[in-house]
Formats: sequence, C-alpha cells, structure tokens
Amino acid sequence: MEALFSCGLSYYKQPKVDVSKWQHASKYGSNEGFANIMWIHSRDKCKVGHANLSLEVVSMNMMATTKDIPIMVNDCSGKMGRAVAEAAVEAGLQLVPFCLTGPGFGGRVLNINNVEVHAHEASEKEEILDKVLDRYPDVIIADYTLPSAVNENAEFYSKRGVPFVMGTTGGDRNRLLKTVHDSGVYAVIAPQMGKQVVAFQAAMEIMAEQFPDAFKGYKLEVTESHQSSKVDTSGTARAVVASFNKLGLSFDAEQIKMVRDPEEQVTKMGVPEEHLKGHAFHTYSLSSADGLVTFQFQHNVCGRSIYAQGTVDAVLFLSNKIKESSEKKVYNMVDVLRGGSMR
Amino acid sequence: MEALFSCGLSYYKQPKVDVSKWQHASKYGSNEGFANIMWIHSRDKCKVGHANLSLEVVSMNMMATTKDIPIMVNDCSGKMGRAVAEAAVEAGLQLVPFCLTGPGFGGRVLNINNVEVHAHEASEKEEILDKVLDRYPDVIIADYTLPSAVNENAEFYSKRGVPFVMGTTGGDRNRLLKTVHDSGVYAVIAPQMGKQVVAFQAAMEIMAEQFPDAFKGYKLEVTESHQSSKVDTSGTARAVVASFNKLGLSFDAEQIKMVRDPEEQVTKMGVPEEHLKGHAFHTYSLSSADGLVTFQFQHNVCGRSIYAQGTVDAVLFLSNKIKESSEKKVYNMVDVLRGGSMR
Repeated sequence: MEALFSCGLSYYKQPKVDVSKWQHASKYGSNEGFANIMWIHSRDKCKVGHANLSLEVVSMNMMATTKDIPIMVNDCSGKMGRAVAEAAVEAGLQLVPFCLTGPGFGGRVLNINNVEVHAHEASEKEEILDKVLDRYPDVIIADYTLPSAVNENAEFYSKRGVPFVMGTTGGDRNRLLKTVHDSGVYAVIAPQMGKQVVAFQAAMEIMAEQFPDAFKGYKLEVTESHQSSKVDTSGTARAVVASFNKLGLSFDAEQIKMVRDPEEQVTKMGVPEEHLKGHAFHTYSLSSADGLVTFQFQHNVCGRSIYAQGTVDAVLFLSNKIKESSEKKVYNMVDVLRGGSMR
Repeated sequence: MEALFSCGLSYYKQPKVDVSKWQHASKYGSNEGFANIMWIHSRDKCKVGHANLSLEVVSMNMMATTKDIPIMVNDCSGKMGRAVAEAAVEAGLQLVPFCLTGPGFGGRVLNINNVEVHAHEASEKEEILDKVLDRYPDVIIADYTLPSAVNENAEFYSKRGVPFVMGTTGGDRNRLLKTVHDSGVYAVIAPQMGKQVVAFQAAMEIMAEQFPDAFKGYKLEVTESHQSSKVDTSGTARAVVASFNKLGLSFDAEQIKMVRDPEEQVTKMGVPEEHLKGHAFHTYSLSSADGLVTFQFQHNVCGRSIYAQGTVDAVLFLSNKIKESSEKKVYNMVDVLRGGSMR
C-alpha cells in the first residue's frame, strides 16, 4: 500500500507506508486497501519522514488520488470533449496528451489548460492506444465524439479492454450495450451525464414507484426549451412524464410543450441570450383538480459544465470500481450517484 | 359478507350475497373477503333479486365500500374538522352524527353536507362513544381539535380501542406515540396531512439517502410563506432542508426566509388575496457554484382541501389495514402513500 498526501502545495509519495499506523489518519481508517488523500493545514505542521509524522488531517473525501487517474478524452477538439478535458484537469486528473479525432483533423496539437494534447485520426488508433496503455496502463477513456462513431469506438475500447465513459449519444444503443456486456470491460453509459438532473429524474421515478397514484386527479403541464437545432422532444422530459403518469396523472408525451423560438426562450423562459445555443430548461407544473394546490419543478441548465463535471465523476466512479474489483458491467449515472461524492 | 352496489342513483343493500358466485363480478374476484363497489351501466340492466342478478361491472377500484366506513370527526365545529367532515361525505363515507367539542360549545347541531351532527362536550365523551360504538362498531375517528387536547383525546381513543387519525398538531408528541404504541390501536399520526406535500418531502429524503452529496457545491435559498399568525418556521421546510444538507449543501434552517407580510405574500409570492389567512407556499432554489445550473422546487397550497383529502385517504388506509388484520401500530402519511390510491 502506498500513501499520497499533500503538504501545502507539494506532493510527496511515501511508498509502503501503512496508513493505519498513523495516529490521526487511523481514526478515519484506510479505505479498502488503497490510500486516501489527506489535506494538511499548513506546511509547518507537516514533517515528512518514516519516524516522525505529525499530521493534522482536516478532511478526507476522496477514495482515490485523482492524480493517479489518467483520462484520455476523445475528441478533445470537439466542444464537449474540450469541456470534459478542462474539467478533468481542473479536478486534478492526469490528462493523457493524446486523443483520437475525426478524418481530416489529425496532426493538430490542442492546448487544454496548459496540457498539449496531440490529435490523431482513427487510422492510427491502434498505435496510439498502444502508446497510451504503455505509459498510462490505468487509463480511462471519456468518449464525446459523434453518433456515427459510437459503436465503432465502443467496440475498439472493449476489444482492447480499456474502461470508458460513453457520453456520446446516438448510434445503435442495443448493440453498444451488447458490445460492452460481452467484452466485460468497465463502462459508464448514460444518455444524460448531468448528475443532478439524473438525481431529480431518479427521485421522481422512485416517488412514482413507492407512492403510486399520489397525484391522482392532478393536471400536468410540461415545457422544455433547448437550442433551436434540437428537433426531438427531450428524453429527460419524456422520462419524467412517465414517472408522473405512474403518480396518477394522465399525460401524453406529445403534450410536452417544446420551445425552440429564441425570442420566446429569452422572454418567457428566461434563457440568457449567451446560452441560446446551448441550454436545457425544463418546467413541470402540477395542479390539483380544484386549483388550490400547485407543484412546480424546474431544472435549468446553461452550457456544458454540468455534463463535463458529471463525466469526471463517472471517471472517478469507474476508477473506484476497478480498484475495488467490483463487477465488470455497464454502469449508469444512477450508479454513479449512489457512489456519493468522489471528490 | 354483504355487497353494496349502485344502480343508477339508488343504492340497494343485499345482505349475505356471496359475490364470488356472480358471473360478472367473479372475474374480478372478491378482495380479501369483503365486497367491492360496483358501478352498473344503467338502471335498466339492473335487476335486484337473489335469483336473477344481471350485472355489468364497469369498474372496480376500491378495496372497501366507502359507505361501509363510519367516520367520527372531532371537532366538526372547527374549520379543519368541518373541511374533513365535508370531504368525507363527498367521498361517500358515513359521517357519524355525533362529535366531541370544546367546553361551552356542546348542544349545537351542525349541518355538514345535509348530515346533522350533534356536538357534545368532553364531559359526555364516554356516553357518546358508547352510543357511537353501538351503532357504528367499525368507526374511525379523525381528530382535529386543539394542541391542548391532543394527548387526552389520544388516551381516550386508545383506552376505548377506537382507531383514529390524529391530524391535530402540538401536544406532547412522544407521549402521544407511547400512548398509541402501548394500547395497540390502529392509528395514523402525521404533522402534515397534505399527501402530495409529504410525497415531495419523502422523495427529497429518499434522493438524499440514495444519492448522498449529489448537489455538493450548490447554493440553496428557501422561502416559505404562511398566514401571518404562524410564528414558527415551517416544519416541512425544515425537513426538506435536512434532506438538502444530506445532498451536500450547507444550509442552516435559520436561513429559511419566512414571509409573513400580506403585501409581500401577494406581490412577491403570488398568494391569492382570499387565501392570505390560510396558505403554505414553499420555494426551494438550488444553483451550482458557477451559476449555470438552477433547480427550483415549489409547492403552493391554498386552503384546507389538501389536508382534508389526505385525512380521508388516511381513514381509508386505516380501514384497509384493519380489514387486512395488519400490524396494529402507528402509521404515518408515508405509509398511507405507499398504500396507493384507495378511491
């Protein structure tokens, strides 16, 4: 076992230190055989040595040291991929300096929060992954590419046994699940990576399962606003409506009001103008038959940060699952949520 | 066993009819040994007699015939008691024509949806309950009296073995629970009888238990508006805040913003003027550290109907528990919710 701890801004690695013998650390225990990160009040109090460890543990909230987790983001040159890569660096993960990109975009070097990432086309993927696995054997891949690449990429990662988070939507989802199931790699696959939105969605589903017909007789209105390029109705809104129907409401998903007109988005929904091209605003309004009771649930997302943060959480979750030798299977964001905070 | 069924607008009681032998009824089965209500298409098709029953069962959605359930409401002369008594009559329950009332209010006759209810003071309670139990042995009491009467009333009901729903708040709640627990009567005790509000509150609690720290880093704002006579902070808001804290927020219940000024209630909270003296409006707003993601949960209640309906549901729930010979214990509104729709 090895322990990694921070002393001011410096990191010291102490191989073979048994953390359970540390007076202050031992009260927190060591978690399933791998060391926990510890934050120390000030450099002055931190004396590093095998004989004299005077540590003051302030908090301990990570199962793994994020610095230990290499993440490869395909494709860092896309908007969502870049957001994930930036969030990963900010969270202290080790961003792998290579990524796979689409035809015609190879050879570029991207600067992600001062990490130079070299983009390579799919034709080079085997050699690039050889190199990555050689230098970062514990790498976890986050995939934000294109719907058309989903299945091919998943088959590639699975064949090579590399754990991955599939944030890209679309493709043949049944084939995707079968690929991962048959290969037995660790993966998180989720159409919605916004952890808090998934928490809300799951809470409504649990409420519906546990309290069937609790809202019988109520009326429902659902409005969702997304960038005008989004043609279909929000899958999240459809899922929430399914829960409300179990709660005793009678609502057809076709009744969901889609708002795609930028003017209406700004004036009626309150979407900030700078997020007209990337937002997800949902409002669910319930009212009793006599109109005396109303419930309203809203989740309004601007930009990509919630999805990028959720992806980093999914990577941390997978890393823990691997270290715990948990079941090799397809996990989803509800599993990630059940794992609690990992940072 | 007896079956009660409606034929047009008339009700016929057929004692000792074994519903399992009815050709059309038998396909639905009889539910745990007591008859189910049946709605018949038209009077023409309904021939009542032991030899020739031509019934067309259209729907069956109640475990008990509500007409079988006598409900005694103490005190029908109070606003909340009257609301419960009215809701009970509207739901088809049999309102007992007696109620207990406070000193100085005995002797009055109250008209509740055309049922004459005679109010008697507590000094007569033993004789009145004798009379009620003689005529309505299956009676269930709903108590909406005063905080100062909670414990004495519960002790009286428990001593006499009468199942009850305690909707009155206040009193010594630990003593109340002990009284019921020791006596082994069936009871529903809940500080919040608004079933849908309890469902929301429980959903937040379940979300917090299952997804700890899911909203870590988020900020919370809580506003609650009630009639200006309410001095303390809403217990429901406090309970929801406790769940949010488990979700990773750091919020002290003292930070809950109480709105008690009628003008602010109308202009800022949107409380209808006619409900200034009886409403419960709650807004919980969560926002991510970067301000790009917001969640808002609102439950706005005007008047008493939600609590009256919830009380009727609790009575139906207790009636089912008694008929199923379920455990004699103190149930709460979450148990009632788990029971699903009972009408």
